[in-house]
Amino acid sequence: MITAYNNPQIKLIKELLEKSKAREKNDLFVLEGARLCMEAPLSKVKSLYVSEDFYNKSFNDMLTKFGKDKKDYEDKVQVVDNNIFKSVSNTVTPQGIMAVCKRMYGDLETVISLGKPVLVLENLQDPGNMGTILRTAEAAGMAGILASKGTVDKYNPKVVRATMGTIFKVPVVYEDIDTIIDKLKKNDFVVMATILDDESRSLYDYKFGLKTAVVIGNEGNGITKETSEKCTSSCYIPMSGEVESLNASVAASVMMYEIKRQVGI
Amino acid sequence: MITAYNNPQIKLIKELLEKSKAREKNDLFVLEGARLCMEAPLSKVKSLYVSEDFYNKSFNDMLTKFGKDKKDYEDKVQVVDNNIFKSVSNTVTPQGIMAVCKRMYGDLETVISLGKPVLVLENLQDPGNMGTILRTAEAAGMAGILASKGTVDKYNPKVVRATMGTIFKVPVVYEDIDTIIDKLKKNDFVVMATILDDESRSLYDYKFGLKTAVVIGNEGNGITKETSEKCTSSCYIPMSGEVESLNASVAASVMMYEIKRQVGI
Repeated sequence: MITAYNNPQIKLIKELLEKSKAREKNDLFVLEGARLCMEAPLSKVKSLYVSEDFYNKSFNDMLTKFGKDKKDYEDKVQVVDNNIFKSVSNTVTPQGIMAVCKRMYGDLETVISLGKPVLVLENLQDPGNMGTILRTAEAAGMAGILASKGTVDKYNPKVVRATMGTIFKVPVVYEDIDTIIDKLKKNDFVVMATILDDESRSLYDYKFGLKTAVVIGNEGNGITKETSEKCTSSCYIPMSGEVESLNASVAASVMMYEIKRQVGI
Repeated sequence: MITAYNNPQIKLIKELLEKSKAREKNDLFVLEGARLCMEAPLSKVKSLYVSEDFYNKSFNDMLTKFGKDKKDYEDKVQVVDNNIFKSVSNTVTPQGIMAVCKRMYGDLETVISLGKPVLVLENLQDPGNMGTILRTAEAAGMAGILASKGTVDKYNPKVVRATMGTIFKVPVVYEDIDTIIDKLKKNDFVVMATILDDESRSLYDYKFGLKTAVVIGNEGNGITKETSEKCTSSCYIPMSGEVESLNASVAASVMMYEIKRQVGI
């Protein structure tokens, strides 16, 4: 049982929760809560940390509830003193269970080769938007998310929370934005910039095919001029009333669902 | 100039920012930041509070930028000691300007009599979702938002921030949910429950008319059984992959934009 605040594993969890560099260096991230920890593929779970209270009161019930075999987790479980667990948790009312997991990223070639719609994110910054977009992309049947290197880390704890369990589902690839767009164009994708001005056409005037890539830009600045010029097409989401823009995750969702409606994925 | 932490006006601002009861009792709320304060209808602005620094460095420029007449604000402006201003502000890096404004609510009869699509919210709780929904409802051309009394206060500071300036646009009515639905039905609206199970029809199988009311439920529990039974129709948003549900503001946005697309508002 872990009883020291300066235990190296406890220090690592704190770093993984707080710093994207630590997640990168160790190729690990942290999940919190029973549901997320149990939905994580077993092969990706490095260690499972449970508070003393959780271990005594809820651990076995949880395994039963999620149809898991205790043996599979025996070598991975570490019991942690209740107060130390609380001190490291990122949630207001911690459930008492966290997992340190190996990161998983999609592969650019593989995602594109599926020949199905993809979402491209350029420098999206807000973790809540990123998590909501991951969740919606899975629901809308996207083949994957292709994110510029300046986009918020998908393993940021706030992103993980906002995905509501879909963090293991839709593949996310981080790559140079030029590389992403070039590869999409070489594979005959329509690369559609979503922009604010209405000099382009409304999204409802397009007939989308399976090979569609929708590009969503940064919350404050939209798509960069350079990227917008590299896209093969552009559209806007029509807006009534006096609104300057839509929330980035709403814009992405409206685009993805219109494509889903048209191509029937 | 206000130089005391226990100044009654400062105490009132704090209460208005923190407590929905204080907002209700005084029929007032607080706006933060130059853009929101300048976009607020002048007749609704009771007082404008600016930090000493903001007053000296930015106040006149701001009025010019937003095309405002200094005379209109002269009787309303209160300069506040910089540290006192910081202590009361709800934002991480306060701009140095806040307004105390009169609340505005829509009227149920008026919103319904427009004969255009409306959004009904039952017990929505998350301020970020509420703000995003207000912003999208304005963009999607909804006549208004009809919210059950258990729905989060539109003047909660987190809602105000997430609306990105649309707080003064789309009318919001708080009313008993049964009264809302009865009134909609009496006025020949299709009252459409958005539900998760797929026993109902996909939203894409519907031909929506102008008199459509979409009901969105609470984030965790969805629409209550009682309300769902009072609706005249129901639909689900199709979901691929292994996703249990969509974020409430995404679900509302996909519904509102499909209606906008069909009826051309």
